[in-house]
Amino acid sequence: MERKRIAIVGIGLIGGSLALQLNEKGLASKLTGVDSNRDHQKKALELGLVDEIMELDDAIESSEVIILAIPVDSMVKILPAILDKIDKQIVVDLGSTKEQLIAITKDHQKRGRLVATHPMWGTEYSGPQAAVHGAFENTAVIICNPNESDADALEWTKNMYKKIGMHLLEMDAVSHDLHAAYVSHISHITSFALANTVLEKEKEDEAIFELASAGFASTVRLAKSNPSMWVPIFMQNRENVLDVLNEHISQLRKFKSCLEKENYEYLQELIENANKIRRIIK
Amino acid sequence: MERKRIAIVGIGLIGGSLALQLNEKGLASKLTGVDSNRDHQKKALELGLVDEIMELDDAIESSEVIILAIPVDSMVKILPAILDKIDKQIVVDLGSTKEQLIAITKDHQKRGRLVATHPMWGTEYSGPQAAVHGAFENTAVIICNPNESDADALEWTKNMYKKIGMHLLEMDAVSHDLHAAYVSHISHITSFALANTVLEKEKEDEAIFELASAGFASTVRLAKSNPSMWVPIFMQNRENVLDVLNEHISQLRKFKSCLEKENYEYLQELIENANKIRRIIK
Repeated sequence: MERKRIAIVGIGLIGGSLALQLNEKGLASKLTGVDSNRDHQKKALELGLVDEIMELDDAIESSEVIILAIPVDSMVKILPAILDKIDKQIVVDLGSTKEQLIAITKDHQKRGRLVATHPMWGTEYSGPQAAVHGAFENTAVIICNPNESDADALEWTKNMYKKIGMHLLEMDAVSHDLHAAYVSHISHITSFALANTVLEKEKEDEAIFELASAGFASTVRLAKSNPSMWVPIFMQNRENVLDVLNEHISQLRKFKSCLEKENYEYLQELIENANKIRRIIK
Repeated sequence: MERKRIAIVGIGLIGGSLALQLNEKGLASKLTGVDSNRDHQKKALELGLVDEIMELDDAIESSEVIILAIPVDSMVKILPAILDKIDKQIVVDLGSTKEQLIAITKDHQKRGRLVATHPMWGTEYSGPQAAVHGAFENTAVIICNPNESDADALEWTKNMYKKIGMHLLEMDAVSHDLHAAYVSHISHITSFALANTVLEKEKEDEAIFELASAGFASTVRLAKSNPSMWVPIFMQNRENVLDVLNEHISQLRKFKSCLEKENYEYLQELIENANKIRRIIK
């Protein structure tokens, strides 16, 4: 795979971790970072995530591939302008929602240069200092509406993800957003709400966290996630997230009803059903 | 610390993992296993968790310490009978709920021999094959109502937990059950309910788990937990669990309302508040 000049727009957790992989797998002849946050620019250079920092327009001009790893609200704002400016460059977006992005670029004359992807990887931390080695490996990446991308752009992007060790899946943007609501976005809402539940209790009982166990930490760790990333995701995937949130509240109400009515046989059934997740999560 | 003849009643995840620690830290001169499940008896011997298997009455007679690591419904059933039978032995229970246990033993003439403890450690797996080396280390153990235990029994138990590398906390049983509802029991309910939410969707959309990420796995892993352990915990801690579950549902409704009303400023605030959990969970 020929090395390319690659610009990464947004050198935070995702962009920074991808930069490390592009370096380690020898996929970039030069890595250019673009970030509106000056501290992030400085940190990304210090950590050696990128070779240089440029303004967006210069980076577009001097790169063969432009990778977008920014919050999904900024994504839909700047993507059409980027497509306006490119010639033969490949543009790859890494956003967590896809329906709106695919819709607003649908009729752009450069639509073929865009490959819409969602690597199913992340942590609850953010910024370039959160970038980690070995990220993305052995996890799935979804390529959305691949038929709308040019063959060469699609091929390069797929090869990049394969080199990093990801499993490729293809899906239309509508299905993607529905699925993401169920197996990613709702987990963040339950975790944020659980954190708020216990933090609320802490106001009257300061010692409440003394018993916090590994199990609690596991269910609540996503609550550390960055609002500037997550609010735009919830905005763009509002309807799907509302559907799954309603279903989740109704599932919780079943547990509540069992306890209220002391119906422990049904409680047992609910837990046995939940245990079927063993089939999915090893 | 002098080695003692120790019987462990219930050689599953908790009893088995404790057996490994008692062996490794040289705290037992002999380890006797008691378990009503014949497969567990066999497996515990095969794995070398205990030196021998005995019936409960024989184990009580031939041991200096009796450790109870059984579901909390069995615990409150057999504990009074065990106290009836002991002479100078130390009895240590490891149950996840304490109010009922402390209440039913309160006036027993052998109450002093009992030390009521809750090590804040566990995994979502069960049975002797789930026992792991290094369990319990660097986590908290709560000693409930320590003033009701005899000094020698309390001292031995505290030293045992210290040798294993646990942090000791003391608490009355009522506070314990309240705290455990907030930082352990509710995590299991949210995880069971989240599993059921997504499994329900899978009925109409088989591919729903294709995108399952590490974040999802983290919030849902407790849903693999054993109902025979958890139903009795929820029964005994019903009122506290109901209180926290109601609060949790009302916190989730705030997220729902933000999305319905498209009030993204408040959504941002809710997430920023949840981020305060960073102070607790590193």
